[in-house]
Amino acid sequence: MDFNELFPVGTYRRMVKKVSVSDTVTNRSKALEEFMSTAAFLETMTQLAVEILDHKLPEGFVSVGVRSEVHNLAPAVLGDDVTFTVTVDRVEGNRMVLSMKADDPHGPVATGLQERVVVSTDLLEKRVWERFGGR
Amino acid sequence: MDFNELFPVGTYRRMVKKVSVSDTVTNRSKALEEFMSTAAFLETMTQLAVEILDHKLPEGFVSVGVRSEVHNLAPAVLGDDVTFTVTVDRVEGNRMVLSMKADDPHGPVATGLQERVVVSTDLLEKRVWERFGGR
Repeated sequence: MDFNELFPVGTYRRMVKKVSVSDTVTNRSKALEEFMSTAAFLETMTQLAVEILDHKLPEGFVSVGVRSEVHNLAPAVLGDDVTFTVTVDRVEGNRMVLSMKADDPHGPVATGLQERVVVSTDLLEKRVWERFGGR
Repeated sequence: MDFNELFPVGTYRRMVKKVSVSDTVTNRSKALEEFMSTAAFLETMTQLAVEILDHKLPEGFVSVGVRSEVHNLAPAVLGDDVTFTVTVDRVEGNRMVLSMKADDPHGPVATGLQERVVVSTDLLEKRVWERFGGR
């Protein structure tokens, strides 16, 4: 597979997400219950990265996250519309680095990155099986 | 407040978490539905960091995440018992860096870090108010 051809640098996907209660409880902090959590930012970044990558992969292949970062810049509050943009930044062999930016109508609220590798589902299952001692 | 005294470097908190379905759906990938997601790792790291920091803060103060990282090392599967350890690594003024390691019975599954700053809830509310144009 030529991943540079499948995922040209600059390929992006965008969505608007309204901050809901389920995006705030994952702060695990009562004092922050009106704000979008870092875990919710990460989940939305993951969703867009998977949407960019996985539907273009042949059957039997999957992308797996290996490294993720989120930088929180400003609070996004309940009911706020946050626009997420996830972009393919780098392709090295079977390894893709995607960047995320998240903005609400008042400016940037977070940035992030996620590195994903493409592996065969057979290899993934083998890895699990071996870790569990071949049970 | 002397945060070096409140949170000595090396302070840690540990918990065992059994991987449940809600920890896997946040992979946003059908092919990964038996594995603990990065968002779930991040949420659990956040929970332990908040438990270490926030109950020691005086009323009117809160810790807020500003940077988070997760490195995925091996798949943790549904039903697996994952031991999380979060440790205070660095204290610089009102800024704390905590590290996370997560292991299942077969070895390490993830590492991570989270940087949190302590702010007054008044300042946090002011920041939100200002971003929304003083509405």
